Amino acid sequence: MNAELIAVGTEMLLGQITNTNGAFLAKQLSDLGIDSLNQQVVGDNSARLDAAIALAESRADLIFVLGGLGPTPDDLSKQTLAKHLGVELVTDEPAMAKLKAFATQQHHQMTANNLLQAMYPAGATVLPNAVGLAVGAMLDVQGRAYVLLPGPPREFEPMVLNALVPALLKRLGHGEVLVSRVLRFFGIGESQLVTELDDLIAQQTNPTLATYIKPYEVTLRLTAKAGSEAAAEALLDPLEREVQKRLGQYFYGYGDNNSLAAEVVAALGRTHTVVTAAESLTAGALQAALADVPGVSDWFKGGFVTYSNQTKAAFLHLDQKQIDAAGAVSEQTAKAMAEGALKQAGADVALSLTGVAGPGPNQGVEAGTVWIGLAASGQPTSASVHHFPGNRAAVRGRAVKAALFILLRFLQGREKHV
Amino acid sequence: MNAELIAVGTEMLLGQITNTNGAFLAKQLSDLGIDSLNQQVVGDNSARLDAAIALAESRADLIFVLGGLGPTPDDLSKQTLAKHLGVELVTDEPAMAKLKAFATQQHHQMTANNLLQAMYPAGATVLPNAVGLAVGAMLDVQGRAYVLLPGPPREFEPMVLNALVPALLKRLGHGEVLVSRVLRFFGIGESQLVTELDDLIAQQTNPTLATYIKPYEVTLRLTAKAGSEAAAEALLDPLEREVQKRLGQYFYGYGDNNSLAAEVVAALGRTHTVVTAAESLTAGALQAALADVPGVSDWFKGGFVTYSNQTKAAFLHLDQKQIDAAGAVSEQTAKAMAEGALKQAGADVALSLTGVAGPGPNQGVEAGTVWIGLAASGQPTSASVHHFPGNRAAVRGRAVKAALFILLRFLQGREKHV
Repeated sequence: MNAELIAVGTEMLLGQITNTNGAFLAKQLSDLGIDSLNQQVVGDNSARLDAAIALAESRADLIFVLGGLGPTPDDLSKQTLAKHLGVELVTDEPAMAKLKAFATQQHHQMTANNLLQAMYPAGATVLPNAVGLAVGAMLDVQGRAYVLLPGPPREFEPMVLNALVPALLKRLGHGEVLVSRVLRFFGIGESQLVTELDDLIAQQTNPTLATYIKPYEVTLRLTAKAGSEAAAEALLDPLEREVQKRLGQYFYGYGDNNSLAAEVVAALGRTHTVVTAAESLTAGALQAALADVPGVSDWFKGGFVTYSNQTKAAFLHLDQKQIDAAGAVSEQTAKAMAEGALKQAGADVALSLTGVAGPGPNQGVEAGTVWIGLAASGQPTSASVHHFPGNRAAVRGRAVKAALFILLRFLQGREKHV
Repeated sequence: MNAELIAVGTEMLLGQITNTNGAFLAKQLSDLGIDSLNQQVVGDNSARLDAAIALAESRADLIFVLGGLGPTPDDLSKQTLAKHLGVELVTDEPAMAKLKAFATQQHHQMTANNLLQAMYPAGATVLPNAVGLAVGAMLDVQGRAYVLLPGPPREFEPMVLNALVPALLKRLGHGEVLVSRVLRFFGIGESQLVTELDDLIAQQTNPTLATYIKPYEVTLRLTAKAGSEAAAEALLDPLEREVQKRLGQYFYGYGDNNSLAAEVVAALGRTHTVVTAAESLTAGALQAALADVPGVSDWFKGGFVTYSNQTKAAFLHLDQKQIDAAGAVSEQTAKAMAEGALKQAGADVALSLTGVAGPGPNQGVEAGTVWIGLAASGQPTSASVHHFPGNRAAVRGRAVKAALFILLRFLQGREKHV
C-alpha cells in the first residue's frame, strides 16, 4: 500500500501555520509499515485540490486529504472529493444531532456550510470526531482508498489515533494490535547505537526498531504487531533482551514521558537517600533538573552554586589555597567540592560539577572538560573526568545528564545491596 | 512571480521531522508579495526529486529545493538539479577553504560527498552559509529561477533572511532593502500586546508589524522596505517610538539572539555589580540562566539553592523559627533570603525566589504564587508577589524571567543615577 498526503490550507502556503498534521500522520503510517513517497500542500481552492487528487491517483492507492472540513466557505475538501469521485454527500445522523445540539446551546443559526460538517461521501465509513463537529471519512473507489481528515491538530490527532489507525489495521487485514516499547539511553550517540544494532535493524520486519534523538540522549522504539497485546509483548521481549545485552550499560529507563531526573528521583525515594550538589559550570542546572520532578522535596533540600574559587571555599568550607593550587577543574577539587557539599547540607550523597563550558579554554583546560565528583557517607569519594563536545550550552547540558546518570547508577548499586 | 517549494527528505515522509522550513520560507515569500500555490515533499530519491522539479516547472517560475545539500550519500539535491538543467557543478573557493579548514581542525578525511558541499551549479549566484558548510545557490535558466537551500533550520533560516531575501528583493526590481528591528517584551501576553497595537496593526503597509511568541515572552518585528538602509531605518524610528510609548514598560531589549539573561549580564558589567541568589522553587534555574551567558564570571560568583526551610536557615544564616512562623512563601521570608544571600556571598545585589510551583497548593498557598525579593547594599530590601499561570514548568520558567526583569530594571535605575 502506497500513501500520499495532501494538506489543504492557504494558511500553510502563507507560512502562517506549519504542516504538523503531515508529520503526525506520516509517523503513524510509517509505524504501520505503509509507504509514503510524496506529500503535497495546496490552498483552499477546489480546482487545485482536484488536480492534486488526480496527481496522487497516478502514484498512490491510499490518498489522504488533510483539512478543509470546517464550516467556513473556504472549506472545500469534502465537496471537491465527492465531485471528483462522482458521489453524493449524505448526512451522518449522530454528527447532525451533535451539530444541532451545539447550535442550540450556542444560539447559532446553522448555515448550509455548517450542515456540511455532518456529511460524508455516500458509501464511506464515517470517522467520528471526538473533539469537534466535522466528521472524517474513508471511502473505497476502484481499488483506491480516500480519507478525509479535519485540519485543527486537536481534532486531527485523536481522529487519527482512535478512528483511522484501527481502520487501517483492519484494512491491512491484520485484526492486529500494535504495541510499542520505548527504551532510553544516555552516554551513546545515535550513530554508535545504530552501529551496535546494525544486524537487528537490517533484518527488522516485526518487531521493528526506530531511533530518535533527544537532547543529549537517544531513545529506541521497539514496535510489534500481533493478534493480541500479550502476543505483541512476547515478540518484544526477546528483542529487548538482545538490545539490553548489547547496550544495557547505557540504558536508564522506559517510556516517552520519562527523564534521567525522574528516574533519579524515583531511585532516591526507593533508597531513602537525600541528595545535594555543588555546581560550578552548570551553575544550578543540575539542581533545577531534579526540582523539575514533582515530589522531589522529600529527597532534595538544597545545595550550592559555586562558580568561583572563593565561593567554592566559602560555601563548602574548603581551603581556597588548595583549590587554587590544584586548579578549579581537577580531580582533587571535584572530590573536595562533593565532600564539602555533603557535610554542609547534611545529605546522604553529594554530586559536584566543575569544568570548562567554553567558548574557549580556561586556565589551560580545554572547553568541554568536566570533572564530576560523588561523595556519600561511609564510603570513598569518587570523581570522573569527561570531555563533552559542542558549544557552551551543549557542554553544560551533557554535564547535567552525565551527573544524573552517575547518581542513578550509584543508587541502583545501593538497591542491589539492600 | 509564482513560487513552488519542494522540501526534500525521507525523514519528513516518515514523520520523524516536521517541515518547518516550508512554513518559514512561505512566510518570507508572502511578506515579499510572492504568490505560492503548491508545495511538495519528496524523499531522498533523485528520480522523484527530478519529477517534482518537472512538475513545479509546469506551474511556477521560482522553484525552491529545500534540503539535501549535506555530506551524506543520500544528499542528492544539488546533483539532481544540475543534471535536470544540464549544467556542471563548480567549486565555490571560499566555501572550499572553509570546508578544508574544518576538516583539518576535526582531523576528518574528506570524501567526494564532503566536497560537494562547497559546489554549486555553474552560472548560479552562491548563497553563503554563515552557520554550516553547505552553500546554497540561485540559478536562472530559461526564464525560471531555481534556488537550493540547506535542510537544517539553523542553517536554513539565516541563509533565507541574510542571503535569499535580499537577492529576491533585487530580483523583484525594487532595488529596495528590507530592514527589520526586533523588540523584546516581558510581562505582557501576545493578545494584550496585539490589543494595545490594534490600530497600528490594522493600518500597516510599510513598515509592517508581526508578533512572535517565545517562552514566556513576546517579540515584535518591525520591518520596513525602502531605497536604502538609512531610509528604512527612518521609516522604523517613528513606529518604534509609538510602540515604546504604549509598551515601553514591558520592553527589555532588541534582537532575535538576545535574552533577559544577556541583558542582565550586560547591565551587571556596565554597573560593575556582582549578583547572587537564593532560590527555592526555581532550585538553581535562575543562576543557570545567568551562567548561560559567556563572560558572566566577573559578575556572578555563586549562590544558594534553598529548597527546604532548614537549608534556607542553614545556608543563609537565618532563624528557622521565623521562617516557619512567617511561612516559606511570604514577603518576610523572601526579604530575609535576599538579605542572607547578599551577606553570605558578599555580593552587591541578591535575588530571592520562594513560591509554589505546583501541581496543587502547598501549606495553603495556591500553585503559581511566587515571592521575589531583592536586597542591595545600602538600600531597603524589596519584595513583590506574583501569580503565574500554567503548570509546574511554566510557573518556574516565568518566575526566573520575572526575577531577571526585576534585576534589569534595578540595574537600569542604578545607571540613571551614575
